[in-house]
Amino acid sequence: MFTIIGERINMTRKKIKEKVWERDADFIMLEARKQTEAGATHIDVNAGGDPAKEVDDMRWLTEVVSKATKLPLVFDSANSLALEEGLKLCNRPGTIINSITGEKKRIEDILPLVKKYRTGVIALTMDDNGMPEDYEGRMKITRNLAKIIEEEGIPLDKVYFDHLVRPASTNPGQARFILDAIIATKREFPEAHIALGLSNISFGLPLRNNLNKVFLAMLMAAGCDGIIIDPCERGMMNILLSAQAALGLDEYCMDYISAYRQGRLR
Amino acid sequence: MFTIIGERINMTRKKIKEKVWERDADFIMLEARKQTEAGATHIDVNAGGDPAKEVDDMRWLTEVVSKATKLPLVFDSANSLALEEGLKLCNRPGTIINSITGEKKRIEDILPLVKKYRTGVIALTMDDNGMPEDYEGRMKITRNLAKIIEEEGIPLDKVYFDHLVRPASTNPGQARFILDAIIATKREFPEAHIALGLSNISFGLPLRNNLNKVFLAMLMAAGCDGIIIDPCERGMMNILLSAQAALGLDEYCMDYISAYRQGRLR
Repeated sequence: MFTIIGERINMTRKKIKEKVWERDADFIMLEARKQTEAGATHIDVNAGGDPAKEVDDMRWLTEVVSKATKLPLVFDSANSLALEEGLKLCNRPGTIINSITGEKKRIEDILPLVKKYRTGVIALTMDDNGMPEDYEGRMKITRNLAKIIEEEGIPLDKVYFDHLVRPASTNPGQARFILDAIIATKREFPEAHIALGLSNISFGLPLRNNLNKVFLAMLMAAGCDGIIIDPCERGMMNILLSAQAALGLDEYCMDYISAYRQGRLR
Repeated sequence: MFTIIGERINMTRKKIKEKVWERDADFIMLEARKQTEAGATHIDVNAGGDPAKEVDDMRWLTEVVSKATKLPLVFDSANSLALEEGLKLCNRPGTIINSITGEKKRIEDILPLVKKYRTGVIALTMDDNGMPEDYEGRMKITRNLAKIIEEEGIPLDKVYFDHLVRPASTNPGQARFILDAIIATKREFPEAHIALGLSNISFGLPLRNNLNKVFLAMLMAAGCDGIIIDPCERGMMNILLSAQAALGLDEYCMDYISAYRQGRLR
């Protein structure tokens, strides 16, 4: 199964922050439903509007979002108290914690929750030295994290690596090594998953949707089996269905053809 | 440079055959101009409407098309007489013969023309045993062809391999090995080029443009540096510019940004 984490309910976005602080449940529920209908498999919930209010906002958001959708949630925070507040209220099969990194403190804070609640976990390829700007650096962190996670007795099929895409405009050639890192990760740790936040690729460029779409197709050809996106973004689900058909992941293109018959392809 | 061979002027298409036999030069010239304006780097000319008329039709088509565009032509035939008729009339820098295969007779007929006129040549990965339906078979022919071509003293940068895409609907998983064959070909023969006819991927499926576009993005991530397409097909040039930007082939996305400013991106 391809993991599609809907990223819209994120309090670092101004509009969402306002609506959460107004406790506008209708607005937030609509955001959850729109993403569910668009084809998301998970709904990300980020309550990071203000550190002082995060635990409280996470509780409210979890209650509201879990009423609006049956999908599992992705609890998105570096604060273990906020994460646990959400997990206590809603821990459906497929729930994911977003995220650990290679940073020692973050591992110590958050990995116990992954074990206790038996959730999945997104692992970002950065560590106490920052974010390495090359293939070898990201793979080194990938391997370290896989080792730590396995030593904790967490099966690797619970892990979703995010190799941290940077903007093509300022980091030329970086997409190439991200693709190579995905190929290597799936070869070395075939049970592990990928959950890549892809829209950063187009940061600072016009018509960002163009770049997001081609990069999604490239990621899928490299073996990427999960992404964090706005599933309502024009054409993204089209690319997903078309890429699965082209790659033979959708055998005899049956999903593609039925999506067409249902009017879901354009 | 990325090679974009415009495929529209092909007499196996009913409309083109009719117009050529009516000697409708205006229609054919417009086909050449439309492809040139859309961004083609080469114009394919296929006069294969009727074997008895092919040499004559190739002469007429070459005269007409070479008047309409300054681009180099791609002479598309298995008939060496038709190929030479075209080459005598128009052999601009960049001209390509389309095509040889691993078939003994075809090599003997056509490779002498490649040498005599110092053209490029498209090499299809099939031979006297037909078209192999796996990665190993296609790579074996690729290697054989590279060897034969080098032994004839033709530099490999004159060669454009076409790994023969088959429909995703009937050959699931075939796109995967085509991508792998491109990666291997560019690794083993870095000077050689690719010129893949990509639209076959979507044969028999609805909304073919969707599959053609995602497959183009995947091909480019695999290192493909040339395609045979209809450059007027909606969105194809968008994908090309976006993929080059994403992959860092268009450094700092300058081509992408200037295409946007000129209104060539949508």
